[in-house]
Amino acid sequence: MTIQMYGFWRSIASFRVRTALRLKGLDFEEIPVDILSGKQFEPAYGAINAGHSLPTLLHDGNVLFQSLPIIQYLDEVHPEPALLPADPAGRAYARALALVTVADAHPLTVPRVRKYLGQAFNADTDAVHDWAMHWIAEGFKTYERLLSQRPPSPFAAGSTPGLADICIAGHMASADLFEFDVSAFPATASLARRCFAMPTFALSHPFAQPGAPKQV
Amino acid sequence: MTIQMYGFWRSIASFRVRTALRLKGLDFEEIPVDILSGKQFEPAYGAINAGHSLPTLLHDGNVLFQSLPIIQYLDEVHPEPALLPADPAGRAYARALALVTVADAHPLTVPRVRKYLGQAFNADTDAVHDWAMHWIAEGFKTYERLLSQRPPSPFAAGSTPGLADICIAGHMASADLFEFDVSAFPATASLARRCFAMPTFALSHPFAQPGAPKQV
Repeated sequence: MTIQMYGFWRSIASFRVRTALRLKGLDFEEIPVDILSGKQFEPAYGAINAGHSLPTLLHDGNVLFQSLPIIQYLDEVHPEPALLPADPAGRAYARALALVTVADAHPLTVPRVRKYLGQAFNADTDAVHDWAMHWIAEGFKTYERLLSQRPPSPFAAGSTPGLADICIAGHMASADLFEFDVSAFPATASLARRCFAMPTFALSHPFAQPGAPKQV
Repeated sequence: MTIQMYGFWRSIASFRVRTALRLKGLDFEEIPVDILSGKQFEPAYGAINAGHSLPTLLHDGNVLFQSLPIIQYLDEVHPEPALLPADPAGRAYARALALVTVADAHPLTVPRVRKYLGQAFNADTDAVHDWAMHWIAEGFKTYERLLSQRPPSPFAAGSTPGLADICIAGHMASADLFEFDVSAFPATASLARRCFAMPTFALSHPFAQPGAPKQV
């Protein structure tokens, strides 16, 4: 049975899972859920994923949600190519790099938070944009410090692209969405460029999806 | 060598790792880093963890950061008792429950975010408190929907406490810190009560740590 993913062109979590599926060489069908107009909060989607988050993956009779658990699930049921290092400390490092954006930066810039800033603080479009830019910058600063202190390797946690690279590339995709200037973050930007030179990443980028606006 | 953890009484991520260490029966020494006065951003701490996040765990020569990767590392190097289900779909579900707070709710209420709301939007103490209450409520709503649709089991993802329970109990500890009323969320509150009835969880609660204010 074809793998199905409920996703959205602009969703960075959807980008992560899309990229992992392509790195694993797995075919999938994507069903769009427009998070900009709040479709993820409607009952029809809640019946599929009571968490109301994107993406949701339907695989082998399982309904999976949250991008990191989905990617680790795919890595466990389809072990090759591995998306995590083999040793526990290396795996912890890769997962920690992932969470710098998944837990510390990206949650602050998602639509439901941007919308609530308007409600709670009367923040206008510019103020909300500045807020997002601030947290995107904080994520890049952290990545730059972490990546600069490691011996050079082709990818963030080894010689092949994996979970950490997917999440760092996702942070770069956020930067693209908000037109954030990454020139102050050369180690992170160079890693992301290496990722997006690969079709697995490039085809998964928000701007490459059906429904995306023409890239600026 | 004794396991060392840089943590703080009020840090929910520190609570999670503290609880996991106790569930594994591992002795540890906790070194406090006052996140309310921004000690985690000072160079001395940055030399230990360039991510400047709490907690940091020193184990067997490894420097580990971010609570979920630390807990998964502990589960890999000390497999008993297991903190994740054995099957890939069960593991994905447990990890997804964890991320409902780790990625979607808790990052919105941490000190650096509360502080920045004041800077960016001139939010006063009450407005920042309301913001935190809003996202704590959103987390509880999601947990209540997810937990209510599963067949009853003693813990969130099985018959023994694990990663998901640690994170849900951490969400409850956030509620305790902010004096958030959980009566509208009986399934989640009942699970958290079951957790905090165990010394492993109770001894790890923010209010049980040295330096914590007397519980209200």
